[in-house]
Amino acid sequence: MASFPAIGIIRDAARRISPYVHRTPVFASRAINEICGAEVFFKAENMQKVGAFKARGAVNAVFSLDEGLAACGVATHSSGNHAAALAYAAGCRRSKAYVVMPDNAPPVKKAAVAGYGAQITFCESTQQARETALAALVEKTGAVFIHPYNDYRVIAGQATAALELLEQVPALDLVIAPVGGGGLLSGTALTVAAINPEIKVFGAEPAGADDAFRSLQAGRIIPVEKPDTIADGLRTSLGDLTFAVIKEHVAKIITVSDERIIKAMRLIWERMKIVVEPSAAVPLAALLNAEAKVKSLRVGLILSGGNVDLDNLPWLKGEN
Amino acid sequence: MASFPAIGIIRDAARRISPYVHRTPVFASRAINEICGAEVFFKAENMQKVGAFKARGAVNAVFSLDEGLAACGVATHSSGNHAAALAYAAGCRRSKAYVVMPDNAPPVKKAAVAGYGAQITFCESTQQARETALAALVEKTGAVFIHPYNDYRVIAGQATAALELLEQVPALDLVIAPVGGGGLLSGTALTVAAINPEIKVFGAEPAGADDAFRSLQAGRIIPVEKPDTIADGLRTSLGDLTFAVIKEHVAKIITVSDERIIKAMRLIWERMKIVVEPSAAVPLAALLNAEAKVKSLRVGLILSGGNVDLDNLPWLKGEN
Repeated sequence: MASFPAIGIIRDAARRISPYVHRTPVFASRAINEICGAEVFFKAENMQKVGAFKARGAVNAVFSLDEGLAACGVATHSSGNHAAALAYAAGCRRSKAYVVMPDNAPPVKKAAVAGYGAQITFCESTQQARETALAALVEKTGAVFIHPYNDYRVIAGQATAALELLEQVPALDLVIAPVGGGGLLSGTALTVAAINPEIKVFGAEPAGADDAFRSLQAGRIIPVEKPDTIADGLRTSLGDLTFAVIKEHVAKIITVSDERIIKAMRLIWERMKIVVEPSAAVPLAALLNAEAKVKSLRVGLILSGGNVDLDNLPWLKGEN
Repeated sequence: MASFPAIGIIRDAARRISPYVHRTPVFASRAINEICGAEVFFKAENMQKVGAFKARGAVNAVFSLDEGLAACGVATHSSGNHAAALAYAAGCRRSKAYVVMPDNAPPVKKAAVAGYGAQITFCESTQQARETALAALVEKTGAVFIHPYNDYRVIAGQATAALELLEQVPALDLVIAPVGGGGLLSGTALTVAAINPEIKVFGAEPAGADDAFRSLQAGRIIPVEKPDTIADGLRTSLGDLTFAVIKEHVAKIITVSDERIIKAMRLIWERMKIVVEPSAAVPLAALLNAEAKVKSLRVGLILSGGNVDLDNLPWLKGEN
């Protein structure tokens, strides 16, 4: 535990990234409070730079590099928000980002990553192909690999969302963050444990990618084999660093079905008039699904991102 | 001009409605600034109570009634945001709202108005049938008819959105509001003229319902005969009260095609991660369509509402 990023490291991250990321607003909705039977506060990371909390971790990682390393650029493999975030962060430091993406990634995501100035290498969509392509790229360019979540610089960056949330909303009883690879959840848990250990932290996870739930039960990492969930940001499995933090500081993982995720997502759009991606709705789905004694609390939920394909909304899929 | 609501009346309205409406946030987006070549500030009335600025005017009108009148209830005919707003306002005052709606109104709107506690009378969807049904209802119940826009109490209420905007954003050069019946635009113009007449006010109007544009050119009200626009909140024509204010205080009406409205709406969803209805996107469409010298300014846009049918998004219609 001594090796986890301490609150001072998280506060350093907050200072480091502040010129490049938004202090996102917190929203509430009386209608949603009534439906939940709780006082719910939504930390709107969907309004963060690049449309997701990932900007925090990526910017912290890139600005933590010394000048020599930064000059070599940074690299990752991802088809999601981390790729866009790393490209954005590299651009902020006038460095280069190299991103390995599967060639079947949606054109809108390719365009987004390219739009932030990354150099994209396409590969087949297997994990093997991605890793091979990334290794070759790092070898060739000397770029520094920045893992999307299993990296303390990234975790400390993601932890700054909860740091702001606790400043913005006093006297929370519970904070719920979504969990995929665990960067956001472990960062959230570290912040909350350091600032007020009486506030509980829960993870919210799609039932179709429930490796965090099963790993916590088993006491060891059990990666998800074939993730099957609409929440595309949460299909990854925990890393050893994120798992260790979660085991120590997260009270509970609540799993929810895709049906409930879509319902919660739509509720957020309709009642709060904000655009969130399916992954961001998982904490609300978990809260709606939680036992009654949880529901009477003051609860902070982290809306992880808002990058959704407006041509393919999940509630329309059954009809098309 | 002496008879227009003065700034003191508008400030009174702001105090009167403050317990029942939100002071909505103002958002900005670097990406949209770059696209526009302007500094753009969005007043997020999509996050207002009932999802639209209409709550301001309705609450002001209902709370302006003396107790005897308020006890009789209020009535209107509308299938849109004003009906929901009036129902909400009546509920806040523990009064009754009677709403005449066409029987072919979308189920989602019927449910919304009923959800706020209004008593709904259905009629055929002609203007004649609505007016007849409303007259009968007022006769029977003694309820006070609250016009959706051609009423100074309503105009003064809508004017409070700009009052907040000017407090929230210093040194604006221009404010653009959408125009349908003209309640929001005339209220905006009154506030801006009183507080800083150097700030210009433009109206933004769908080309398929361009009665304000034509009326200003002709110097007399020319109602739109067959409105044809996706911006369902802007299909109505100016009233004599709103026209008089607009003629006096609005510098220009910019008309935009539905294609541009849909494009601007999608841009707001994608870049700002907020849900707005087509009518709310008309000012951005107008700004994008404006001449270059306008674009270099600090511009406040009023996002009128966020009530959109998530099963029928306009950019998906061509495909279905």
